Amino acid sequence: MFRTHTNGELTLKNLNEKVTLSGWVQTIRDKGFMIWIDLRDRYGITQLVLDEERSSKELLESAKKLGREFVIKVEGTVIERTSKNPKIPTGDIEILVENLTILNESQLPPFTIEDETDGGEELRMKYRYLDIRRNPVKDKLIFRHKMAQKVRNYLSEEGFIEVETPVLIKSTPEGARDFVVPSRMNPGQFYALPQSPQTFKQLLMVGGMDRYFQIVKCFRDEDLRADRQPEFTQIDCEMAFVEQEDIMNVFEGMTKTLLKDITGRDFEDFPRMTFADAMQKYGNDKPDIRFGMEFVELNELVKGKDFKIFDDAELVVGINVEGIADYTRKQIDELIDWVKRPQIGATGMVWIKFQNDGVVTSSVNKFYSEEDLKKITEEFGAKAGDLIFVMSGNADKVRTQLSALRMELGNRLGLRKGNEFAPLWVVDFPLLEFDEESGRYHAMHHPFTSPKTEDFSLLETDPGKARANAYDLVLNGNEIGGGSIRIFDKDLQSRMFDLLGFSKEEAEAQFGFLMNAFKYGAPPHGGLAFGFDRLVAILDGNEVIRDYIAFPKNNSGRDVMIDAPAPIHQEQLTELELKLDLKA
Amino acid sequence: MFRTHTNGELTLKNLNEKVTLSGWVQTIRDKGFMIWIDLRDRYGITQLVLDEERSSKELLESAKKLGREFVIKVEGTVIERTSKNPKIPTGDIEILVENLTILNESQLPPFTIEDETDGGEELRMKYRYLDIRRNPVKDKLIFRHKMAQKVRNYLSEEGFIEVETPVLIKSTPEGARDFVVPSRMNPGQFYALPQSPQTFKQLLMVGGMDRYFQIVKCFRDEDLRADRQPEFTQIDCEMAFVEQEDIMNVFEGMTKTLLKDITGRDFEDFPRMTFADAMQKYGNDKPDIRFGMEFVELNELVKGKDFKIFDDAELVVGINVEGIADYTRKQIDELIDWVKRPQIGATGMVWIKFQNDGVVTSSVNKFYSEEDLKKITEEFGAKAGDLIFVMSGNADKVRTQLSALRMELGNRLGLRKGNEFAPLWVVDFPLLEFDEESGRYHAMHHPFTSPKTEDFSLLETDPGKARANAYDLVLNGNEIGGGSIRIFDKDLQSRMFDLLGFSKEEAEAQFGFLMNAFKYGAPPHGGLAFGFDRLVAILDGNEVIRDYIAFPKNNSGRDVMIDAPAPIHQEQLTELELKLDLKA
Repeated sequence: MFRTHTNGELTLKNLNEKVTLSGWVQTIRDKGFMIWIDLRDRYGITQLVLDEERSSKELLESAKKLGREFVIKVEGTVIERTSKNPKIPTGDIEILVENLTILNESQLPPFTIEDETDGGEELRMKYRYLDIRRNPVKDKLIFRHKMAQKVRNYLSEEGFIEVETPVLIKSTPEGARDFVVPSRMNPGQFYALPQSPQTFKQLLMVGGMDRYFQIVKCFRDEDLRADRQPEFTQIDCEMAFVEQEDIMNVFEGMTKTLLKDITGRDFEDFPRMTFADAMQKYGNDKPDIRFGMEFVELNELVKGKDFKIFDDAELVVGINVEGIADYTRKQIDELIDWVKRPQIGATGMVWIKFQNDGVVTSSVNKFYSEEDLKKITEEFGAKAGDLIFVMSGNADKVRTQLSALRMELGNRLGLRKGNEFAPLWVVDFPLLEFDEESGRYHAMHHPFTSPKTEDFSLLETDPGKARANAYDLVLNGNEIGGGSIRIFDKDLQSRMFDLLGFSKEEAEAQFGFLMNAFKYGAPPHGGLAFGFDRLVAILDGNEVIRDYIAFPKNNSGRDVMIDAPAPIHQEQLTELELKLDLKA
Repeated sequence: MFRTHTNGELTLKNLNEKVTLSGWVQTIRDKGFMIWIDLRDRYGITQLVLDEERSSKELLESAKKLGREFVIKVEGTVIERTSKNPKIPTGDIEILVENLTILNESQLPPFTIEDETDGGEELRMKYRYLDIRRNPVKDKLIFRHKMAQKVRNYLSEEGFIEVETPVLIKSTPEGARDFVVPSRMNPGQFYALPQSPQTFKQLLMVGGMDRYFQIVKCFRDEDLRADRQPEFTQIDCEMAFVEQEDIMNVFEGMTKTLLKDITGRDFEDFPRMTFADAMQKYGNDKPDIRFGMEFVELNELVKGKDFKIFDDAELVVGINVEGIADYTRKQIDELIDWVKRPQIGATGMVWIKFQNDGVVTSSVNKFYSEEDLKKITEEFGAKAGDLIFVMSGNADKVRTQLSALRMELGNRLGLRKGNEFAPLWVVDFPLLEFDEESGRYHAMHHPFTSPKTEDFSLLETDPGKARANAYDLVLNGNEIGGGSIRIFDKDLQSRMFDLLGFSKEEAEAQFGFLMNAFKYGAPPHGGLAFGFDRLVAILDGNEVIRDYIAFPKNNSGRDVMIDAPAPIHQEQLTELELKLDLKA
C-alpha cells in the first residue's frame, strides 16, 4: 500500500496515528542532527521529520540521499509541530518518520517546482509534465474540470442530451481552413476535422433530439495569433421549438450557476444591448462593462469652430476618464503615441482636462473657448479631476480606435478586475457583412443564421441592413458564447446560400445533406456555443487560454513536448497514395 | 411560444387546461367528420382531435392537408378520452384542437418513422436524422448520455479530474495504423490522431494529477470489420500511487453503480479468473459466464483407444450442452458443418449423446465402448438429455474453435440474455506474445505494461512466460475494459523497448519524451480504459456498437449521410504541399 492518507488531509485529529504517505520531495532542510522534508502531492504538503534522537542512523542516512522531486513513501506517526504553519491545512502536525522508501529518483528539474518558478514559457512547455506539478497550473486544470462538470450537470438537469458528433467529417469552404485527414480506404479522398458540430447539431434537431449539448473539441487550421489554439473546446448546444428568448434564458441560467459557484452570490438578470448600441457606446461588439468611459459623440458640439480635423471628420467621439486630470503632459503624450501605433492606427487625439481647480483646458484651446470646453465636459458629465480624450475620423475606424484606448485605460487603471464579473447579452447582430476584398457578403455568424422576420424584405433591397436572430454572451469584454435562431425553411436557406455567393452546385455539394434534411419536417430551432477554454479562463479571473489547456500548442502549432507534428514514414505516405510536394 | 408542455406529460391532472403543443405528425386517422392526429416529440405522443361538431370548418380543412412528419403547433383544451390507451402516459387524455399552425411541411419520408421500420440499414444511415426520430434509436442515444453522466459523476466524486488531452499528436509505429493530419504550417510534417491518450495520461501521472479520467474520442485507421468504427470513444483512466487491487476496486465500483442503475439491484463482488484459467476453461480470454458449458479436457480418458485423430491430437477437449440430446442427426451435422466453416476452421467434431432413456451413444462408437463413453459423461457431469461435443488438435487452435462453438450454442439456445449481467475480471495476462510473422515479441497490452515482480527474471530467460500486471474487465463475453500497472522505471522501460525490437533510436524518436519524463520522479501508476461504445451497448442488452453512435460510419469508413470522405480542392493540397499519387 502506498498511502493511508494524502498529503493534504492530516491534522491534529490524527495525532499519534500510524500513517503511510507517498509523494514528491518538495524541499529538504538538513540541519545535520535534524532533517525536515516537505512531502507534496496533488492534495497538499505534509512535513516529515527525522532526528538523531528519535530516528535510526540508517534512516537519517537514507534521508540525506534524497533530492528535490524524488518520489518517496514513508511510514511514521503523526505528531504535533512545535512551530506551526497556519498557511496550510496540515500545518499543525508533522510525521515522525519510521520508514522511508525511495520509489523513484529524480534528476534536478530544469526549473523550480514552485508557485513562482524560474522557468521560461518555452522550457515549461517542453517539460509540461513538470509544469503541471506546480499549483498554479494544476489548479487551473482542476478548475476547468469542475466547470465542465457543473455545465454537464446543469444541462442534463435541463433535459439536454449530450450526443457525440463525428470528428472525421467533410471539408467545407466556409469559415476558417479545415484540417484534413487523408483516407487510406478511399484514396484521393479526405475527411476534415470539424470547426464546429454546427450541421450535426442541426440534424439532431431535425432528428427530434429536442435539446442537445456537447463539450467537444473543434479544429481550425489558422495562422495562429497569440493565444489561439489549432484545437479548442466548445460547449455546443441546440434546442428545438424555441425562440431566441428561450435559449437566452437557459444559458443565462447556466452562466449564473457557474458564477454563483465561483463568487458565492446570485447574479441579477444579465443586461442586454443591441449590436448597434454596443458599437455606438463602446465601439465594440463585446464591451467590458465593468467600468464606464462610455463614448460620447460630439459632432454637434465641436463642428464649425474652424478646427479642420473635426470639421472634416465623419465622427468626433470621446471618453471621459475619471480622476486622471493629474496626468502629466508626458503621460498624455505617451497615450497619444499609443493610439498612433500601427496596431491602433489613429492619426492623433485631442485631450480636455477638467483640472482639480475647476479650470478646463485642452490641446485645442486655439479653437475652443473655455465655455465651449465646459459644454463638452457637461456632455460627458465630467467633473473636476477628469480627463477627456477625443478622437475623430471615419466612424467605424474611430470607434474601433477609441475602444482600444478605452480597454487599455481600463487595464492600466486596474478597472478590469479578474474577480468582478459583468455579463452582457449583445443582440440584434447584422445578418451579413460586406467583404470589400471578395466583393460579396459574408455571414456574420454563419450561413444558417435566420434573419429577423421584420427584416425579410431587406434581404432583397438592402441585405447589409438586415438584422439576424443572433446573440452573443459577453463577459468582461470577451465573447464567451454566441448563437442564433437557425433557418429551418429550405427555400430561405437556399436564398441565403445565394446571397452568400454559393452556386447551386456548391451549395448542393457542401450542404446538400442539410438542405435535404430540411425537406422532411425540420422544426424551428436555434442554439449557442461557448468557447470553453476562454470561458474557463475568464471565470477564473484570467484571460490567457493556454494556461487552461493541459497540453497546449505553441504559436507555430507545435507541441514542443512531444515534438509534433513530425515527418512520417514513406510507407505511410505510399499507403495513403500521397506524395510530398515541398516548395523549399 | 411553441409549447406549454411536451407531448409526454399531459394527463387527467391537466383536464380542461388550455395548452400549446408542437411536434411531428406521427399518424392521422381521418374519418371525415372526425380527425385524430398523433403528435410526437422526444418525450412522447399526444392525441389531438378535431370534429365537425366542435371544430370550425377551416380547422378541419387545414388538418386534412397534413401529412406524416409535418411539423405543427396546436393550441387546444385537454379533454378526457372516450377510449383510453393504457400503453402511453398520455393515454387518458386528448387535445381538442382550437388552433393549428403548420410550422414545416414534410415530404413522405423514405422509410416509416415507427419502432419497427421498413427501412434497410444503408437507407437509414443515409437519412440518419430521420432514423434518430425512431424511439429505438433515440432511446439508445439517450441511454448513452445517461451512462456518460453516471460515469463522470462517479469518477468526479472519487477525486478523478477530467483532463482533455490533445487530438493532434504524433504518429507512433506501435499498434494499429494512425490517421494522419498534414500540417500546413509545418510542410512535410504530420500530426496523428490518437489511438488512445496512453502516453498523455502517464505524463499526467508524472505531473502529479494523481487521478485522471476522460471520455474521449480515439482513432484507428484499420481495415474495418463488421461493427468496428474508425473513431470510437473510450473512458480513459489513470491513477498514481496504486496497486492493481486499488484500480480494480475503483472501476468495479463504477461498473456496479452503472449495473445498479440499470437493474435496480446490488451486484456481488465480481469474480476473478486468471488468463490461463480462462483459456483452459473457456478457450477465450473474455468468457461469457452467464452460462456453463465449461471445457473438459479428455486426453487421459480418450487416448490409446486406436482412434487416431484423438491419439495424434495435442489436446482433446469438449463441452456438455444440457438438454439437447434430442437434436436430430441433421441438426448435429449442421453444427459440425458450422465448425468446419473457414472462419472457425475445425476439421471435424465428435458427439456423445446421453439419451433421455439413459443410453449413451456417439459418433465414435467404433472406438469407444458404452462404458468408455459413460466415463466421459461422468467427467462432464452430464446427465440424461445432454449432448457432448468434443474437438481435438493443436491446443491453442482447438480451444479457440471450441470457444466459438460454445458461444454459438449460447446464442442459439438463448442463454446469452441481454438483461442478465455477468461481470468477470480476467487477470495475470502474459506480458508478451510471440509474433511468428515478424519473428519478435509484441506487447500483449502495450509497451508500458509492467511485468509481475516475481516474473522479472523470466524476461531474460523465457520472456513469453512472463506475466503482466494486466487485467481486463469482461461483461457477458465482451471485453469492456482493460488496463495495467505501468512501468515507471526508465531502465525497465528501456529494457522493454529492447525486448519489443525497438532500436535505441526508434525508442528515443517515438517515446523520448516519456522516457525523459521518467527521469524526473515518475510515481508508481496504472490505469484502465473502457470501450465506451461497447460498454453502453452491452449495458443496454445489445452488442451492436453502431446503434449507440449518433452518426456512425459504414464498413468502408464512409459517412453515407454527409458523403465523407470526399475529394478536396487542389488549392488545399497545394497549401499543404502535397500531391495525390493514386495507383489506379
